[in-house]
Amino acid sequence: MKTRRDFIKSTAMIGAGLSILKPSLSFAETQPKKVKLGIIGVGLRGQSHLSLIMKRNDVELVAICDVQQRMMHMSMEMIDKMKYPMPQMFLDGPYGYRKLLEIEDLDAVIIATPWEWHKIMCVDAMKAKKYTACEVITGMTVEECWELVKTSEETGIPMMMLENVCYRRDVMAVLNMVRQNVFGELIHLQGGYQHDLRGVKFNDGITAYNSGVEFGENSFSEAQWRTAHSVTRNGDLYPTHGIGPLAMMTNINRGNRFTKLVSYASKSRGLHEYIVNKGGANHPNAKVNFKLGDVITTMIQTHNGETILLQHDTNLPRPYSLGFRVQGTNGLWMDINKSIYIEGISPQHQWEDAKPWLEKYDSPRWRQDGDKTIDAGHDGMDWFVINDFIEAVKSRTKPPQDVYDAVTWSAITPLSELSLQQGGCSVDFPDFTNGKWSERRN
Amino acid sequence: MKTRRDFIKSTAMIGAGLSILKPSLSFAETQPKKVKLGIIGVGLRGQSHLSLIMKRNDVELVAICDVQQRMMHMSMEMIDKMKYPMPQMFLDGPYGYRKLLEIEDLDAVIIATPWEWHKIMCVDAMKAKKYTACEVITGMTVEECWELVKTSEETGIPMMMLENVCYRRDVMAVLNMVRQNVFGELIHLQGGYQHDLRGVKFNDGITAYNSGVEFGENSFSEAQWRTAHSVTRNGDLYPTHGIGPLAMMTNINRGNRFTKLVSYASKSRGLHEYIVNKGGANHPNAKVNFKLGDVITTMIQTHNGETILLQHDTNLPRPYSLGFRVQGTNGLWMDINKSIYIEGISPQHQWEDAKPWLEKYDSPRWRQDGDKTIDAGHDGMDWFVINDFIEAVKSRTKPPQDVYDAVTWSAITPLSELSLQQGGCSVDFPDFTNGKWSERRN
Repeated sequence: MKTRRDFIKSTAMIGAGLSILKPSLSFAETQPKKVKLGIIGVGLRGQSHLSLIMKRNDVELVAICDVQQRMMHMSMEMIDKMKYPMPQMFLDGPYGYRKLLEIEDLDAVIIATPWEWHKIMCVDAMKAKKYTACEVITGMTVEECWELVKTSEETGIPMMMLENVCYRRDVMAVLNMVRQNVFGELIHLQGGYQHDLRGVKFNDGITAYNSGVEFGENSFSEAQWRTAHSVTRNGDLYPTHGIGPLAMMTNINRGNRFTKLVSYASKSRGLHEYIVNKGGANHPNAKVNFKLGDVITTMIQTHNGETILLQHDTNLPRPYSLGFRVQGTNGLWMDINKSIYIEGISPQHQWEDAKPWLEKYDSPRWRQDGDKTIDAGHDGMDWFVINDFIEAVKSRTKPPQDVYDAVTWSAITPLSELSLQQGGCSVDFPDFTNGKWSERRN
Repeated sequence: MKTRRDFIKSTAMIGAGLSILKPSLSFAETQPKKVKLGIIGVGLRGQSHLSLIMKRNDVELVAICDVQQRMMHMSMEMIDKMKYPMPQMFLDGPYGYRKLLEIEDLDAVIIATPWEWHKIMCVDAMKAKKYTACEVITGMTVEECWELVKTSEETGIPMMMLENVCYRRDVMAVLNMVRQNVFGELIHLQGGYQHDLRGVKFNDGITAYNSGVEFGENSFSEAQWRTAHSVTRNGDLYPTHGIGPLAMMTNINRGNRFTKLVSYASKSRGLHEYIVNKGGANHPNAKVNFKLGDVITTMIQTHNGETILLQHDTNLPRPYSLGFRVQGTNGLWMDINKSIYIEGISPQHQWEDAKPWLEKYDSPRWRQDGDKTIDAGHDGMDWFVINDFIEAVKSRTKPPQDVYDAVTWSAITPLSELSLQQGGCSVDFPDFTNGKWSERRN
């Protein structure tokens, strides 16, 4: 457990190191097309981005920022190992990132911090005129979502939420099939986040995963902040991996929009049982009441008449599955059984192995760039999502996922919480585009 | 198309035949333990029951009844072919079944008629003191459900809805696993009716399946009556195959109960497209507006905190799947990928083939009686459901599915319709047991 005194000490220490570690600006000056990038938050997720960024020859990493010495040191080691020019480093408390944003010729930032910091950091970054990429969950409340939209509109600065599952190879192949009308008119879609996170929500304070039953200040990495949401909130806390791809397929904010949703929550058992089984019934955390239901199910209605089912299931022992289903008037794909059926093409009225279909409709982008993704996280999806952001910065164009997508997907969380608070009532979906959804096109 | 005049003519014709075909009562008198049974409704489903019944040596089929000459003739042919003693036959219009119920020594009836006739026929049968089995959907409205409960309570006559999926071999193995706590405490369950019924909802008036685009009076068998529900109603029209097994696993009406549900409906496209594609855009039925959404999704909350997801998907091209998922604190089963994962037993944190599990926990009843089911419909499930009814009649005990189950499962339809009419509001579930659910046990 770090004390406040330790924190001040470590901040000061890194602060003293800044002048030594500051990179030469001439590096960027000689290669004017390189994107000057900063990373706010170099925890484990930020380090994954760091690793990708250092491999790109069209980006110059000029600064990184965090609130924890340990994460900064881990990042420095990575940078050293890559023999990458050491960027400026900001370890100066929660608002230290604002100093990073003061770097005048910084083009863009990637934000990979706890959810509760995303909104203010995105707002500050856009106000500082930096292209803004942010890890998923951009807006913890509907009000935060609106603030992000208004800031992006007022500053003219694009904001992209880094929803990587939109770039999953099978998902992109299926999107390709959707665009080519293989499924016919879309009718019903499913997705979600079904991922046993118990070993992420708790650890021993030293090793990030599967190492103990601590969370909050006694823990390390995500367990420090993410688990608290399971204590105090009940709703679909992590909707974007499921909804992002489905929203793209159904043209949400581009001729279609979500009109309402409703959520149900099962009882909460998984996290408590995990603590008792691994830490014993007398462990202090065995007294914690977790508000988050183990399985949250959410139904969404779209303007164009599709229904979308989302599931959030992170507290129970289960194999990982995003549970995709894309169903139209001609047939459907499901990922859980890796199968497709298309009427008139599938030889029999039964499931076919999806593989030949996914190969046939493999995204041209994967065919072209697939080999670049080999070292990237999450089966290569991360390379694509970062690449699309960097390309948008380079060309000063809008990224393919924009601020409206970011908040529309993120708003599912507070809306599902509201639906549950109201006993399972349907909740109207705000139109963050203020009517522009009907004119916008892919 | 049959005219009313044809109908009267055919009724009279069979009426004239009755005295010849009436079976000798002495058959039953010499074997007093045989259950004297009548079948009301010998359409294709009733004929399937007829076939099973004739093979049993503990039942004497004493009467059959229908409103259609064609169905009566088909049944007579089956009976002839089996060299089974010809039962009394009632072909005397919609209320002809009441004459069947007047047979004094009749012990029991099986009702296999259109949904809209189930309630009145069950009520009449119970009032006539006949053990009553009825095909699924017993109660089209909440009021009908209550009437069935009150009639059963007042007459003391059990009523069993013939929900056969409760007897599916894998379902019974999973129920066995639930009872032995393999899944731990149940958290979330899924099921439904995902069955491409387009070839059932429409035909050419001669052949029952996949033969045309007619429904109503120009069609044959189920299309005559079932399809009309897709024209005028929007909701989960066929919930019992999915909910029956899940209700048994979660002890509904036996220490647990459904407290509320909410439904969403997708747009309606499948039936119209089917007509246009098979019958042409100028076919009169291409003008029909089908109210039933192609995919209806319903969430149910239980008193004990489980959530249940039900899906109804009968208008689109798709492989058959009831979509079962049974998930508890230890792991889960899904039927779509034929997989199970149980923490601490499954060798890795990934799906295992369900087969060895289902064999290990195979129901003792299937082990004992599985060979008797070989000729029975729906992979043998039908033998079990009929057998349980007949055994209850023989022992004058309550069948394992009782009137409370029948109406609780059936009421999902009108409640989901109401939820949709109210724009996706949650609707409270009536307690048909009037509080007895908390005391009743398996």
